[in-house]
Amino acid sequence: MSPPTTLLLTLDCPDRVGLLARITGFIAEQRGNFTEVNQYTDGISNWFLARFAFEIPTTSTLESVRRDFAVIAEELGARWELRDRAKPLRTVLLVSKQDHCLADLLWRWRSHELTIEIPLVISNHDDLRSSVEKEGLPFVHLPIEGNAAEKEGCFRRLADVLSEAGAELIVLCRYMQVFPGWLCAQYPNAVINIHHSLLPSFAGADPYRRAYDRGVKLIGATCHYATEELDAGPIIHQEVIKAEHFHTPDDLRRLGRDCEKLALARGVRFHVEDRIVVHGSRAIVFGD
Amino acid sequence: MSPPTTLLLTLDCPDRVGLLARITGFIAEQRGNFTEVNQYTDGISNWFLARFAFEIPTTSTLESVRRDFAVIAEELGARWELRDRAKPLRTVLLVSKQDHCLADLLWRWRSHELTIEIPLVISNHDDLRSSVEKEGLPFVHLPIEGNAAEKEGCFRRLADVLSEAGAELIVLCRYMQVFPGWLCAQYPNAVINIHHSLLPSFAGADPYRRAYDRGVKLIGATCHYATEELDAGPIIHQEVIKAEHFHTPDDLRRLGRDCEKLALARGVRFHVEDRIVVHGSRAIVFGD
Amino acid sequence: MSPPTTLLLTLDCPDRVGLLARITGFIAEQRGNFTEVNQYTDGISNWFLARFAFEIPTTSTLESVRRDFAVIAEELGARWELRDRAKPLRTVLLVSKQDHCLADLLWRWRSHELTIEIPLVISNHDDLRSSVEKEGLPFVHLPIEGNAAEKEGCFRRLADVLSEAGAELIVLCRYMQVFPGWLCAQYPNAVINIHHSLLPSFAGADPYRRAYDRGVKLIGATCHYATEELDAGPIIHQEVIKAEHFHTPDDLRRLGRDCEKLALARGVRFHVEDRIVVHGSRAIVFGD
Amino acid sequence: MSPPTTLLLTLDCPDRVGLLARITGFIAEQRGNFTEVNQYTDGISNWFLARFAFEIPTTSTLESVRRDFAVIAEELGARWELRDRAKPLRTVLLVSKQDHCLADLLWRWRSHELTIEIPLVISNHDDLRSSVEKEGLPFVHLPIEGNAAEKEGCFRRLADVLSEAGAELIVLCRYMQVFPGWLCAQYPNAVINIHHSLLPSFAGADPYRRAYDRGVKLIGATCHYATEELDAGPIIHQEVIKAEHFHTPDDLRRLGRDCEKLALARGVRFHVEDRIVVHGSRAIVFGD
Repeated sequence: MSPPTTLLLTLDCPDRVGLLARITGFIAEQRGNFTEVNQYTDGISNWFLARFAFEIPTTSTLESVRRDFAVIAEELGARWELRDRAKPLRTVLLVSKQDHCLADLLWRWRSHELTIEIPLVISNHDDLRSSVEKEGLPFVHLPIEGNAAEKEGCFRRLADVLSEAGAELIVLCRYMQVFPGWLCAQYPNAVINIHHSLLPSFAGADPYRRAYDRGVKLIGATCHYATEELDAGPIIHQEVIKAEHFHTPDDLRRLGRDCEKLALARGVRFHVEDRIVVHGSRAIVFGD
Repeated sequence: MSPPTTLLLTLDCPDRVGLLARITGFIAEQRGNFTEVNQYTDGISNWFLARFAFEIPTTSTLESVRRDFAVIAEELGARWELRDRAKPLRTVLLVSKQDHCLADLLWRWRSHELTIEIPLVISNHDDLRSSVEKEGLPFVHLPIEGNAAEKEGCFRRLADVLSEAGAELIVLCRYMQVFPGWLCAQYPNAVINIHHSLLPSFAGADPYRRAYDRGVKLIGATCHYATEELDAGPIIHQEVIKAEHFHTPDDLRRLGRDCEKLALARGVRFHVEDRIVVHGSRAIVFGD
Repeated sequence: MSPPTTLLLTLDCPDRVGLLARITGFIAEQRGNFTEVNQYTDGISNWFLARFAFEIPTTSTLESVRRDFAVIAEELGARWELRDRAKPLRTVLLVSKQDHCLADLLWRWRSHELTIEIPLVISNHDDLRSSVEKEGLPFVHLPIEGNAAEKEGCFRRLADVLSEAGAELIVLCRYMQVFPGWLCAQYPNAVINIHHSLLPSFAGADPYRRAYDRGVKLIGATCHYATEELDAGPIIHQEVIKAEHFHTPDDLRRLGRDCEKLALARGVRFHVEDRIVVHGSRAIVFGD
Repeated sequence: MSPPTTLLLTLDCPDRVGLLARITGFIAEQRGNFTEVNQYTDGISNWFLARFAFEIPTTSTLESVRRDFAVIAEELGARWELRDRAKPLRTVLLVSKQDHCLADLLWRWRSHELTIEIPLVISNHDDLRSSVEKEGLPFVHLPIEGNAAEKEGCFRRLADVLSEAGAELIVLCRYMQVFPGWLCAQYPNAVINIHHSLLPSFAGADPYRRAYDRGVKLIGATCHYATEELDAGPIIHQEVIKAEHFHTPDDLRRLGRDCEKLALARGVRFHVEDRIVVHGSRAIVFGD
């Protein structure tokens, strides 16, 4: 006998009495059995946010639940997502020349730590081709260069490649190019970036050098959704480590890599487990 | 207009389909509005555990909700608690000679960080009388001494004092006496202790010295419910700090005090906010 | 027999071969015995920085060592400090209305965790008078108000009070007034401030609210030397804690207080133990 | 012009006045220039422990310094080591079936994060052959099986392989076999193991399951030198992470892997940088 199907439902809408009873009542009618539920009302905006994990009986399917729930969601005026937890998310990785985040994510993918499939890896440089192909994955070299108009053309081509690959999630693994706003907008809350500082400190270039110069005692990394504005999207996760006085900027880069790997891997995991609901400028992460 | 009354409901019972809908449906009927809900099914024991925070309309009261919910709880075979979040919990502090946890908790009480009232402080020594009375709180000196039978008599007197004080929560603030099993049993999951190690490491006496001798690189403190077996009750919270090679056992004691204060204060807070459901040997803490 | 006198020597100067041998050779001639030594050469500025703790024989005194070492220090072109570790540092605390850092430092002072004496506590408000006087300490109410010129006059009076008190260290315990540059300059690297954010994030007003709005996943506090520029002085220590999605700005303020207390207490301790050498914009902390 | 040669000297001996002057004086005579020095006297055992990093002029060599220093070390009765920081340490990795620590260390080796060379990887299983050979490294399958006498024979063969490989450091990357005492003794303080718990908690088998059953709120990993007694050798480094109530034993295993990777990588780094002096049951780690 195969294990039961577990569905993940995330949802947000204006708060009012009876929302939770309405939703859980619907799932109960479908003979769904909850395994993990988190609900939170943002008292400042009076907003209802929730995540539900539940097992469905063999008589139900993702599609039947989706179809029936759509009626309720419309009634509630809710934004929502429903997924089968076991179905791998199609995830495209983008990388430049540094491979630490890439290698880390590939290991987690190969070891089934992350429920993702990787149709391809894209880079603006050719350096990491062999380490990607060694994993049996297609590698696409797509340079981003030239003047503004030419770069724009490059990003159009990139958008085509992403679209053809059926990307559901895009992970920028220290990809050193800034996605244009229109491209972020095509994948709302589905482009994950890693920045090598504790944002909002040291947004932009060379954060470890600036952290060294400022003499901070803690450095870190921030996993966030990419938006039009550089390093300003909703923060998913942050990792931190102590900087010692004898650490040079290069030491900070080395220590920071461990933060970057962990912050990105954990952030991607939260996304893949549908633990995140973005509310305004904030990412609500249930069970992080 | 006064703020709405918020009730806290914790509950656990054998899992089955429809539990959450049944409970939230009941609250919705009462026009209760959820502000924070956490549910979790322990897949190993197939057990349903949950915490609900919800505001009730002025037409309802704690008593009316309790009376009506009792019917449902019985139907579900559930263990449950229901409290008014704003009502201070009657909390008795026990202390020996060291005052760091006491001083910390008293500051948090005085500053309204913790929703508790303190009918009295009890100690087996008289040393801390003035610092307690300076706060305007009664101090009871109740020595625990003599042979086993005499000590047993002391604990009987202690039990009387606790009972007369109407204690709902007992906090052992580095109280250097072990509560007998029958006394723990009178206050199930309501006697909180702080142990100065990362349990299960270094249970028992002089943990910092033993941590030093073993050369551990992390020390810490553990807040747990006291049970008959020494330092073996359900763990509520743990705090940790790095030990450096130049730290003497006395340095570890000093650093450890900061862990003890924080671990105890946070553990007490989780209890006071009704975030804890004990399940077997484990304390489930929702939103810790 | 009394324990040996331990001296603390901190020193920095341009690097060159033979410095450490010169200094340790001098101490050895004095029959001093090292118990903890840390030396570090900043390779970017080619600068020698060091801290020495050593016991001196009863035939030596702080004064004799200081007199003799002055010759060497001049020869090396070094900036240096020499102190008796057991001698309490005269420390003036400044506070406004919030008392958490004050209460925490007073507890550590009373419990001999910190080798300081407190000639008085100064506040721009009268609110905390009784809690200071209860400790047997003088409390000076010195308002900072009016237009710029009047405020300047207030700070002149404050400078007089500090001078008369013989302040060696000034600790701003959530003191809500910005010290003028000329006052910081009178106490170089001897005015310690606590800021309630992970600097350089959220310098200035209301950092917890801004941290909430930005949706950061880590909040914290920064202990630093006050300089003319607000929240820009050399960082001594930082503490961090995880922010959860259900934490309101008030929750962040509450959690942040624990970070503030710890960061300030540890920073003050590092200063009192003479573990800090400021080098440009960075505070080198040996053995933090 | 090539960068100067940096030597690393670690040393311990009974404490007495003048030790540091004697050692630094010798280095100064050799025109050595210190870049990082840490000295610490253990007051309980009255023992002098120190680490020195210093650059030597082109007129000196590791061999000349070693020859000359031997005279001094003998005079002081010191145990000591002297190495060229730039010379890779010959490091043999041992692994069973799980590859997370192996993959992590191989990435750090390939990326020159660790100054090691890897003559070969040894496993008691053949599973990881291809992932090792893909890196261009020899893989030796050396089963450990049979009765006690047969196993002993296996370890004799293992000892031969290690010896032929010229192993200076042996890293047990979740190697599921316990080294016999005589083999540990051949490589004193040069066999590094990773245990998947916060030792001394949960020494031995299946620590994550036992951590789950005990309901601890923090799990972690411990990097230590292997000695005859299982999981009892000097601790080099520990990493910790919070366990949440919804984490199953498998979740703890997954989260623990991140701790294991980091704890092992950092411990190996401290060893390779000669930051460790073992003193009795404790590992003094300078600058960890």
